[in-house]
Amino acid sequence: MANCQERLEKSLSHWLPAAGTHPATLHESMRYAVLDGGKRIRPTLVYASGQAVGSAPELLDGPACAIEFMHAYSLVHDDLPAMDDDDLRRGKPSCHRAYGEATAILAGDALQSLAFYVLAHDNTPIRDQTRRRMIEALALAAGSRGMAGGQMIDLTAAGQELDIAELEYMHIHKTGALIRCSVVIGALTNPDLEPDTLDSLDHYAKCIGLAFQIRDDILDEEGETGTLGKRSGSDRSLSKSTYPAVIGLDAAKQRADELHEEAMASLSGLGAEADPLRWISHYIIERDR
Amino acid sequence: MANCQERLEKSLSHWLPAAGTHPATLHESMRYAVLDGGKRIRPTLVYASGQAVGSAPELLDGPACAIEFMHAYSLVHDDLPAMDDDDLRRGKPSCHRAYGEATAILAGDALQSLAFYVLAHDNTPIRDQTRRRMIEALALAAGSRGMAGGQMIDLTAAGQELDIAELEYMHIHKTGALIRCSVVIGALTNPDLEPDTLDSLDHYAKCIGLAFQIRDDILDEEGETGTLGKRSGSDRSLSKSTYPAVIGLDAAKQRADELHEEAMASLSGLGAEADPLRWISHYIIERDR
Repeated sequence: MANCQERLEKSLSHWLPAAGTHPATLHESMRYAVLDGGKRIRPTLVYASGQAVGSAPELLDGPACAIEFMHAYSLVHDDLPAMDDDDLRRGKPSCHRAYGEATAILAGDALQSLAFYVLAHDNTPIRDQTRRRMIEALALAAGSRGMAGGQMIDLTAAGQELDIAELEYMHIHKTGALIRCSVVIGALTNPDLEPDTLDSLDHYAKCIGLAFQIRDDILDEEGETGTLGKRSGSDRSLSKSTYPAVIGLDAAKQRADELHEEAMASLSGLGAEADPLRWISHYIIERDR
Repeated sequence: MANCQERLEKSLSHWLPAAGTHPATLHESMRYAVLDGGKRIRPTLVYASGQAVGSAPELLDGPACAIEFMHAYSLVHDDLPAMDDDDLRRGKPSCHRAYGEATAILAGDALQSLAFYVLAHDNTPIRDQTRRRMIEALALAAGSRGMAGGQMIDLTAAGQELDIAELEYMHIHKTGALIRCSVVIGALTNPDLEPDTLDSLDHYAKCIGLAFQIRDDILDEEGETGTLGKRSGSDRSLSKSTYPAVIGLDAAKQRADELHEEAMASLSGLGAEADPLRWISHYIIERDR
């Protein structure tokens, strides 16, 4: 997978217009928001899922970039003063702190367009029908019934005490939808995939998506700003409901472990080719940033 | 074309999630930003261009909606306080005035996703290869090298005196790219179209796109707020360069007339089936709102 990380960084830089491209400030801000930072979990999932279904890495570069551009746009917009008002992201000033609000809004907007451009334009031999399914999945995952809807629920819920069902509903949309989409579009690169295998991978993705968020909440509670690359305790300070707050820290850790087990069980029909997916599930519940 | 207007309004409402769909405020704000307003010039161009190449209206509903969703998102974001800070749009309070800034940002984001979703998901017999070309064209037109880039240039230029070349460059991106895309994706619904015909239609679209913007500037100078549905003189008050300011009111009107003539000439190889395109070019330079 280290090879994939290298491929990804190169591809991200390739698809982003060069920093000097007119209008230069916009293109600089887009590169700033995407490059040199981030855990790259979602694009790594694209590569890992593609590997699990036997697809060559060459087919996965475009889909992986599309997912990361979509994720980067969501971070830029979520950090805006009208949203979560975060000054720090990926260990650097957030995009609007570095470039101003107007540029950050436009950088996010343009990164979303770029995500779809990559899926449509990428000149690998992915079939047009497959691209259509990928674009449909990504548009649904990003939109009002996915990520953007989840962020809306999160904003509305600030200051309110959610119960566990409401909290999971929010996370399934806010972060879960794009994580699931990462695994699905990686798997779609094999057009002959059995529907059962796609379902298993999708279930794996649902489990790790939620586990990821629970771990995020635990880190927000326990972590240190320097390690996290964003302010620790920032969710608490925004009066957001978190797993530790709603069900307690120990129960949150236990729930993350259970989800990890369930994710591993979903992969039981797959052999060593799915090891990177297994490794990611481990990483998600053990990471410290 | 009145028939198309009716088809469009029905399709827009169909593709937008119902107002009660969770999260309700987000879906209400998306419907607010799209429905009951707007001149619908871009989707009308999709229908007119499709008619010019012999495509049935049923094939054009999806592409027309995709274009209008993209346009509506751009208006919502352009009106934000950090951008043009406009309180009035389409004769109503702008989206952030009605729903707050965070919701308006998310509504715009989700409308952009929805535009791509419609092109990918729409179940008309448009070929997958054609959809891929449409999505690629729309993503390029909307992104940093199209509409979002144009808005960036516009913001950067506020308070500066542009020359005519810089002004045209800005408008070719800010409004021209999406207008051109409207005509192109309408024409793409005929997969057997001669490249020459596509080129002629594209040239027509370039001309009317610029004429549209010149007329906008003239109306901003001469029009009344009540008729326009947005504040008249708002560009001037933001110290934006306009055609009347840069080349004078009479020269601006003459330039719009010349572009109309050039647009009509581009259609000379087409018969009565292109009359709606001719009518739109007339309308653009004669409209009073």
